[in-house]
Amino acid sequence: MASRTPQLSGRTVRVLVCTEKKTFVTRELAETKVTFEGIEGDRHAGLTRPADVRTPWFPKGTLIRNTRQLSLVSTEELAQVAETLVIPKVLASWLGANLEVAGIPTLTHLPPGTRLFFPGDAVLAVEGENEPCTGPGRVIEAHYPDKEKLASRFVKAAWQRRGLVAWVERPGVIRAGDEVKVMLPKPVTYGVPVEPTGKKAGLA
Amino acid sequence: MASRTPQLSGRTVRVLVCTEKKTFVTRELAETKVTFEGIEGDRHAGLTRPADVRTPWFPKGTLIRNTRQLSLVSTEELAQVAETLVIPKVLASWLGANLEVAGIPTLTHLPPGTRLFFPGDAVLAVEGENEPCTGPGRVIEAHYPDKEKLASRFVKAAWQRRGLVAWVERPGVIRAGDEVKVMLPKPVTYGVPVEPTGKKAGLA
Repeated sequence: MASRTPQLSGRTVRVLVCTEKKTFVTRELAETKVTFEGIEGDRHAGLTRPADVRTPWFPKGTLIRNTRQLSLVSTEELAQVAETLVIPKVLASWLGANLEVAGIPTLTHLPPGTRLFFPGDAVLAVEGENEPCTGPGRVIEAHYPDKEKLASRFVKAAWQRRGLVAWVERPGVIRAGDEVKVMLPKPVTYGVPVEPTGKKAGLA
Repeated sequence: MASRTPQLSGRTVRVLVCTEKKTFVTRELAETKVTFEGIEGDRHAGLTRPADVRTPWFPKGTLIRNTRQLSLVSTEELAQVAETLVIPKVLASWLGANLEVAGIPTLTHLPPGTRLFFPGDAVLAVEGENEPCTGPGRVIEAHYPDKEKLASRFVKAAWQRRGLVAWVERPGVIRAGDEVKVMLPKPVTYGVPVEPTGKKAGLA
C-alpha cells in the first residue's frame, strides 16, 4: 500500500474553463465543480466523445469513453516553452488548459493511471501526455505578431511540456490555490518481446 | 504514431460472466456484448462503483468512476500459479475472471493505459494489476480439499500473475477465439524527487 499513497504535491495556480464553441481558449474562474463528465459546461465535458485525430486507431467519429475531460499544464513547463520560443510568456488559457499547477516536477511525464487529489474531494486520473498541435501555437502567434513562425515552432518547443489530459474519478470542487497531491501508479516496465509470439522473450 | 499501434497480440480463450450476487465465480459464454458499463449483467458492470478495500484512499462507499469493469487472466500465468501451488489447474472462473487470454507474455505486467482491441469493435483500457486476495484462494481450496492452506498460499502464488482489471473504451462484442491486439502506452519513467518540493530533483 505504501506505493499507493500520495508521494508528491503541488499547487493549483489557475482553474480555467471554455464554454464556447468557436474557440478553445479558456478563461479563469476562482473555482469549478467537476462531475463524472468533467468540468460542468466545458467544451471537453462528457462521459463519451467522438474519436478524432488524437485516436487515429478508431474510425473518426466513433463514440468512445472520454478520457480527455480536463487538460493540465505546469507553470514551470510553460515558462520553459516561452523561454524556448524567446517570448515573454505562454499563458495556460492560450493552450485551452483547464488547470495550471505548479511545483510538480516534469508534470507532462506523469504516467497514465496517476491520480491527482484535491482538497474539495475531486480526484482526477491521468490519461497521459497532451501532444502539442499547432492550434495553441496560432493563438500564441496572434499575441506576438512580430515573431516568426511561432505556430509551427510551438509544436517542437512544447514537446513533452504540453501537460496532461485527465478524467474525473471522483466528483468535487477544484479551487485556485488548492494543494494537489499526486499518487503515482505502481511502477511497471513492459518490453515488447523480440519474437512477437514468443512466450519466453526477455520481459522485465 | 508508431509507438501507438498494436505491438503484440494474443487470443481470447474464454469469455466469462457472473450475474449472481452470492458468488464471484464466473461461468463461460461463447461471446458477450460490452457497453460503456462493462459486460451487460455482470456483477462488476457499471459506470461508477462504491470505493472499497481496493481503493483505501477513499472513504469506503464513496462513488467513484468504475475502472474495474472487467478482469482478465492469462492461460500461461494461471498455469504458473497452479504449478506453484502444486495442483493440477487453476480455472479462470474460480478467480471470477471475465476474460482468459493466451499468448500475451506476462499479461499482469501490462501498464495502466494499455488498450486491448477485439475484432468485434470492443476496446478495453487497462486500469492495472488485479492484486490477489484470499477469496479466489478459498474457491481453489474447495476444489482440492486434501491440499493444505491453499487459500492463503494463493495470494503469494498469484502475486504479479493475477491478471488485470480494465474498463470499456469502446463498446462491441468479445467472442471466445477472438484475436486480441495490444497497444502499449508511450513508455514513461517518472521518479519521485529526493526533495519532495524540489523543482530540480533528478527526474527521468
